[in-house]
Amino acid sequence: MSRFWSDIVHTLTPYVPGEQPALAHPIKLNTNENPYPPSPRVVEAVRRELGEDGATLRKYPDPTARALREAVAKHHGLRVEQVFAGNGSDEVLAHAFAALLKHEAPILFPDITYSFYPVYAQLYGVEYRAIALNADFAIDVDDYRAPNGGVLLPNPNAPTGRALPLSEIEVLLKQNPDVPVIIDEAYVDFGAESAVNLIDTYPNLLVVQTTSKARSLAGMRVGFAFGDAALIEGLTRVKDSFNSYPLDRLAQAAALASYEDQAWFEESCAKVVESRDRMTAQLRALGFDVVPSAANFVFAKHPAHDAATLAAALKAKEIFVRHFKLPRIDQHLRISIGTPAECDALVAALKELIG
Amino acid sequence: MSRFWSDIVHTLTPYVPGEQPALAHPIKLNTNENPYPPSPRVVEAVRRELGEDGATLRKYPDPTARALREAVAKHHGLRVEQVFAGNGSDEVLAHAFAALLKHEAPILFPDITYSFYPVYAQLYGVEYRAIALNADFAIDVDDYRAPNGGVLLPNPNAPTGRALPLSEIEVLLKQNPDVPVIIDEAYVDFGAESAVNLIDTYPNLLVVQTTSKARSLAGMRVGFAFGDAALIEGLTRVKDSFNSYPLDRLAQAAALASYEDQAWFEESCAKVVESRDRMTAQLRALGFDVVPSAANFVFAKHPAHDAATLAAALKAKEIFVRHFKLPRIDQHLRISIGTPAECDALVAALKELIG
Repeated sequence: MSRFWSDIVHTLTPYVPGEQPALAHPIKLNTNENPYPPSPRVVEAVRRELGEDGATLRKYPDPTARALREAVAKHHGLRVEQVFAGNGSDEVLAHAFAALLKHEAPILFPDITYSFYPVYAQLYGVEYRAIALNADFAIDVDDYRAPNGGVLLPNPNAPTGRALPLSEIEVLLKQNPDVPVIIDEAYVDFGAESAVNLIDTYPNLLVVQTTSKARSLAGMRVGFAFGDAALIEGLTRVKDSFNSYPLDRLAQAAALASYEDQAWFEESCAKVVESRDRMTAQLRALGFDVVPSAANFVFAKHPAHDAATLAAALKAKEIFVRHFKLPRIDQHLRISIGTPAECDALVAALKELIG
Repeated sequence: MSRFWSDIVHTLTPYVPGEQPALAHPIKLNTNENPYPPSPRVVEAVRRELGEDGATLRKYPDPTARALREAVAKHHGLRVEQVFAGNGSDEVLAHAFAALLKHEAPILFPDITYSFYPVYAQLYGVEYRAIALNADFAIDVDDYRAPNGGVLLPNPNAPTGRALPLSEIEVLLKQNPDVPVIIDEAYVDFGAESAVNLIDTYPNLLVVQTTSKARSLAGMRVGFAFGDAALIEGLTRVKDSFNSYPLDRLAQAAALASYEDQAWFEESCAKVVESRDRMTAQLRALGFDVVPSAANFVFAKHPAHDAATLAAALKAKEIFVRHFKLPRIDQHLRISIGTPAECDALVAALKELIG
């Protein structure tokens, strides 16, 4: 508390990211990081940009991240004007709240979803209504018919992992033609259908993606928004009123290179999906209810064991999973998909704890 | 224009950063970049963090940038709780507007100053009054006695380069004990006195610095705020409600290493200061009025030659300087200090143009 704070600061309840343990070799299944390294092309590209003496670092990066945006536009069959780049999809989402979601009517997002959404809403004074997922944590798009100032959904949803079919996204877009509809596709590459191809049809659609998950670049902070050029211009105006250069030279080089190795990307995703399906079966064999996941994590609950207790017991074994003390999901664990060995260690530890 | 934009977007006039020319070898004296590369330790540190296969990049960075903040705290004789790190001092300043400057009374900053300040004010709905510099572009702290919600000054000022003595900063702090006083020290290492040592005395003082200029890391986007722990907490609450991880792994490593090579830092600064003093004398010999500079640029005006015309003529020779089409300074050029060869080329070109 400080009398020097702006009023808003007193009202904020900041987002709390997953713990980054300082241990030598934790089994870290709490922040949905990719267990595999990025493409070797990423390493080469960073080394090239760095050069022998780092002289390039003395110069500002391209504030428009033009080369990166062009590469990503090409990858998705978009025009560069349809691509916005930011410091992780978190910054992209923050700018989207400021630029696109502050209207008279409240925005709508699920009651169980990425817990940063209500934080952004508070920061920017955006009213919202949380729409309850149904009992099996599915989104019913019919619930998003109320008058609103915008709709925001992750697909697949987090922390549930459940995907919404593209046909349902399209119903949502048709129901809400007069407000921005933002589909947050942080985890889309692990098994959901991207809405990117709908951008030319729906000028109110914004698709948000990241290099943090499927492209193994959580450490480099690069995310995107794709949409009609007018939506992208709105984001750009806010970004250029906040920080001209949110992406440093090495981040731009790393992200661009990650789009130049499609085989690596597909192989990483396939390995994660295979481990996820195996871990889902193993957890079910241990008696867990596991939500069907299209992401790089599973969301699981044991009918006979308290989730917080399990999370603490796993942590004592240096295995980190995510537990949210939130209504409706305080008996669930969100477990990221690690390497096969990490997944085995998690399953073995749970077997010991509940067996 | 788009009906999907939030109202604020229609009102924004974004900041326009200096041009980053796509030429092979421009003489780039328009964005106050350091002409010398960062310390070799920076390059080593980035390579070490990157590793052989880039596996570290798959993991999120430390959201609190703890190791970096500790190193910088130690460098300045501060506690880590007195240090905030952000994506360049631009992001730090943006968060400062949101966290510390939104009060009922307008904030005060000079009429001729960093042109991002009014942009931030617009983005966050912060009222401001621009206080006129006196005729020789000096700040008179007596002009900052009006009731206000905060005071913001660069020291040295930009784009004038003029420094304010620390004793005057202290007068300002004593005059304004009930509001945040923010001293933006982006250029302080080239000849002004830092206010960092006043932090323990004045709980309303926030000092903003950057690695972009004196530490040759414009390309890596790392800036800081130093102040009482309560001010830093206000900034942190806003940051954690916006983007948990604004500094990627390589940026944190690079910035930290730049504080481990004091000799390199001092030598780079000394070379820039020497070139600045030489260039100032040469420009005066050509008839320019040059504002006494404590920064890594000079602000100069020729009584007989139009500044915009000169800037365009220099650009035709692939020499880039900054010209602001703003009241009171539209006859000035802001010229960054390059290598001795770049400074010589600039002076030779001007000699040709006005000679």
